[in-house]
Amino acid sequence: FSSAEILDDEDTFKILIATDIHLGYLEKDAIRGNDSYNTLDEILKCAKTNQVDFILLGGDLFHDNKPSRRCLHNCITMLRRYCMGDTPIHFNILSDQNVNFNTTEFPWVNYQDENLNISIPAFSIHGNHDDPTGAEGLCALDLLSASGLVNHFGHSHSVEKIEISPILMQKGKTKLALFGLGSIPDERLYRMFVNNQVTMLRPKEDQDEWFNLFTIHQNRSKHGPTNYIPEQFLDDFIDLVVWGHEHECLIAPTRNEQQLFYVTQPGSSVATSLSPGEATKKHIGLLRVKGRKMNLEKIPLKTVRQFFIQDVVLADYQDQFTPDTPQVTKKVEDLCYAKVTEMLEEAERERLGCLLTPEKPLIRLRVDYSGGFEAFNTSRFSQKFVERVANPKDIIHFLRRREQKEDIKDEVNVDYGKLLKTTAVEGLRVEDLVKQYFEATEQTVQLSLLTEKGMGKAIQEFVDKDEKDAIEELITYQLEKTQRHLQARGVTTEQDIDAEVRAAACMGNRAEEVNVAINRAKALRLERGDEPVDADLSRELALDSDEDSVPFPPPARGRGRGGRGRGGRGRGRGELSYYLSQIKAH
Amino acid sequence: FSSAEILDDEDTFKILIATDIHLGYLEKDAIRGNDSYNTLDEILKCAKTNQVDFILLGGDLFHDNKPSRRCLHNCITMLRRYCMGDTPIHFNILSDQNVNFNTTEFPWVNYQDENLNISIPAFSIHGNHDDPTGAEGLCALDLLSASGLVNHFGHSHSVEKIEISPILMQKGKTKLALFGLGSIPDERLYRMFVNNQVTMLRPKEDQDEWFNLFTIHQNRSKHGPTNYIPEQFLDDFIDLVVWGHEHECLIAPTRNEQQLFYVTQPGSSVATSLSPGEATKKHIGLLRVKGRKMNLEKIPLKTVRQFFIQDVVLADYQDQFTPDTPQVTKKVEDLCYAKVTEMLEEAERERLGCLLTPEKPLIRLRVDYSGGFEAFNTSRFSQKFVERVANPKDIIHFLRRREQKEDIKDEVNVDYGKLLKTTAVEGLRVEDLVKQYFEATEQTVQLSLLTEKGMGKAIQEFVDKDEKDAIEELITYQLEKTQRHLQARGVTTEQDIDAEVRAAACMGNRAEEVNVAINRAKALRLERGDEPVDADLSRELALDSDEDSVPFPPPARGRGRGGRGRGGRGRGRGELSYYLSQIKAH
Repeated sequence: FSSAEILDDEDTFKILIATDIHLGYLEKDAIRGNDSYNTLDEILKCAKTNQVDFILLGGDLFHDNKPSRRCLHNCITMLRRYCMGDTPIHFNILSDQNVNFNTTEFPWVNYQDENLNISIPAFSIHGNHDDPTGAEGLCALDLLSASGLVNHFGHSHSVEKIEISPILMQKGKTKLALFGLGSIPDERLYRMFVNNQVTMLRPKEDQDEWFNLFTIHQNRSKHGPTNYIPEQFLDDFIDLVVWGHEHECLIAPTRNEQQLFYVTQPGSSVATSLSPGEATKKHIGLLRVKGRKMNLEKIPLKTVRQFFIQDVVLADYQDQFTPDTPQVTKKVEDLCYAKVTEMLEEAERERLGCLLTPEKPLIRLRVDYSGGFEAFNTSRFSQKFVERVANPKDIIHFLRRREQKEDIKDEVNVDYGKLLKTTAVEGLRVEDLVKQYFEATEQTVQLSLLTEKGMGKAIQEFVDKDEKDAIEELITYQLEKTQRHLQARGVTTEQDIDAEVRAAACMGNRAEEVNVAINRAKALRLERGDEPVDADLSRELALDSDEDSVPFPPPARGRGRGGRGRGGRGRGRGELSYYLSQIKAH
Repeated sequence: FSSAEILDDEDTFKILIATDIHLGYLEKDAIRGNDSYNTLDEILKCAKTNQVDFILLGGDLFHDNKPSRRCLHNCITMLRRYCMGDTPIHFNILSDQNVNFNTTEFPWVNYQDENLNISIPAFSIHGNHDDPTGAEGLCALDLLSASGLVNHFGHSHSVEKIEISPILMQKGKTKLALFGLGSIPDERLYRMFVNNQVTMLRPKEDQDEWFNLFTIHQNRSKHGPTNYIPEQFLDDFIDLVVWGHEHECLIAPTRNEQQLFYVTQPGSSVATSLSPGEATKKHIGLLRVKGRKMNLEKIPLKTVRQFFIQDVVLADYQDQFTPDTPQVTKKVEDLCYAKVTEMLEEAERERLGCLLTPEKPLIRLRVDYSGGFEAFNTSRFSQKFVERVANPKDIIHFLRRREQKEDIKDEVNVDYGKLLKTTAVEGLRVEDLVKQYFEATEQTVQLSLLTEKGMGKAIQEFVDKDEKDAIEELITYQLEKTQRHLQARGVTTEQDIDAEVRAAACMGNRAEEVNVAINRAKALRLERGDEPVDADLSRELALDSDEDSVPFPPPARGRGRGGRGRGGRGRGRGELSYYLSQIKAH
């Protein structure tokens, strides 16, 4: 396509591309609670205005594995409002829909259901946030697909072997093969790729006439040696990859010169962390495909809350103060006040005339106070910005500069062809590591670590997935272990403290235990070289799991790659194994 | 109607009536897990086979306030399968649909939505299990109504005053006014009735031509003085009341001779407790309305698991054994074995040829062992029936006979007209009682009671509604109180027990605290004259909240009334106030 060729004719697919909408993110926040809903509304309205043929979502439509009722209700309502109606659909599906849409009892595309009047079909893979769980392997998306509001595709039911069957679409003369792969723990998928267990099926006929579009929801940044999916793993017959999961908007397609395909990374449509990647302007894409040519138009999102982030290194201000300067902490606070005010003014200028943009921006100032400086009282500081900032409580983020970590070797020099031929790779059998770890633990009775980890994990699962079973199981487990432990040590409970004081005290201890677990996790992350996390880690764990952990100071951000800190936080099924293999290494 | 008049002509409404389907009840149980789903399938299939005009549900479609994903998915799937299609609808809606269907952005009946092809519209009020919660006042049913699969009606948004606007329907010459009132805590609704705050609106024109059908989901049995809704409270212009919530199937309409209307109580379609009320054969109804005449055809449900219950009073077997007989416990066990076997044989005979009925029945034997007998080991007993009974673990229920409680005075002699004219009734202002109670508690520092009650309540809420907020709030509350308490007493935690033991021990104490709360609740119920509950109370609380607490031995069950034990277990918002007013009385 040159821009002159952009024609919305009967041979051109118009596809609205978005990902990581994280519906329901912070929905209880008084200021930001509606952000994710407003932006889904904007996205769907945009699809309607542009009369697209379909919507393609790259996963994490929902922030929570078990979205709240309000969240589901809002989502259903918006999809029904925007995606149902009389507008005719101009493309056909040629593939076996029983294979493409295998998660409901209605294995066909929603717009061909004779009981539903769909104007804009939406196709979505699932992400790591809204991944399938339970014996039935259902995810939140499947409630929408059972209702006929979304076409959930790319769900592989095997954990050993994946065959990706494309949805074959035809509009006029254009043939589009839509491949999708819902989120899978990165290390497992990495291993499957390495063991040649991932196959992409191609139409046998007219193979060269198809435009091959692939949607994936995985780490694209390298989070540890096998905790991401190298682009080189993907088949080179692909024309365009829509890469979900990474929140930084790098939507302009970048060319992979080895595989000769393009990758577009739309990024999230709501900032779920205060990291630099989330601060880039958010966009969705309008993809046009005609024959084997494509064009991707960036569409800026207007309802997204502004986010500004800056770094300050106190040691760089020797002309103004040193740790020995009288009232240095006051001076530091004044400096920060000026920086934040500056960002706020910039935000205000940028927002001029943008009626849809929320008034209060997100602001983050990362303050490197190494070299003997002291942190000032951030809660008093926050008070000054309560009226102007959406996140007054965590504007300031104190941290100490660490030695530059050695960069992980870039994968450019790795021979992926060779790697893919290896049938068994040492160090990749995560299950074995887990087993070994638990065996070792049992033998040396590292009860403390196990307890804390168990607690921390259960709490996170509880927060993330609303799992009451997790809590129940934990209580039972802890109870049994305690009894054994107490018996072994001959400890008896005190009789002179009456029952309810003990009971109440236990609540305190439990909270303490949580803190211990959190601190332990913090320490581990620091060891791994992650960005230090806020005091309110439990909240961060639940909310910011897609944050790219970017080393401080942040690297210059080029095209095609987000930050590349070591050992970013995995999540879901992958999280435990990663965590354990790290421990193993110490 | 005489039966000769039953004609499915163009003037006859055919309505499938069902209630308390409790979808998702015990869904994790290996044997009974699919019972509620199978029966919904049967009910919807029955609606389709009988070509009804619509389905009317009396609340508690869902067992859990937050149904699991599987539960929602199953429900959506079945509704889409049976209620969508090309069959034309033969009745019109004449009322203002914005008023009738006020819980979604699509305030019109689903079959008139141009984007949905509905063959059987379903209308439902919400029950106490699937009641609206949260700031948005949404209930699980609203996910279905937002999807267009169910028409949720009868949701009053005010807690002070209720106006019930009927859905006015016309089929041929027949005019049907469908009134509905979703579940409201009984005491609150009672008070509203007494204060004349409940109004049923009637069409002004042709007032006498309308058949007035009212759907309600409240206690019909008297659970305490104001903890139910007397039929006499309901307007006498009503022709038929469909009464939900009560699980005993008393579907044949009974005439209220004072109000001159009929009441049908379809009962639940799955037994959620092992009480006598659940043992009556389960039915749904096919209601025909032509002009102002009606006929209700009982349709037995085939997929419902059989349930047999019997009582044994050991003191009645003096010819066989007394507490002093050698090996009396063995003899008692043998007697019980014989009784259970007898019930199993009866079940088997009854099931002959019923292919849809599950193989293993529910069996309950209530054993009154007062007079010096000892209970035998029920777990060993259970083992013998594992292969034949659906509930092997709780077949036997030991209890001791108590003195007959004085029956609550029957309401027949109460002058309801007078009652309804009273504008303020002493003792009914539950909010005041709550307030007084808390004030008194604060002053006398009855910390222990408060702690246990708080814990018990939070746990129940957690179990019932999957409320993580409840747990969070409780932890914060307990933590703060503990700190104050410990400081006041000068108690310091022991330094010589290392952290993880303390942490682990606290889990034990917490469980202990739960037990204390449970025992306290148990004692209170005994005081109130309830049936003693199983050891596994926490489970019963969550699962059996609709059980009619029937005094032992059970009264002969006449038509029109279930058991009438005092102080049955309320649930949801009403529970706290009732509980508190009971405490107040001691």
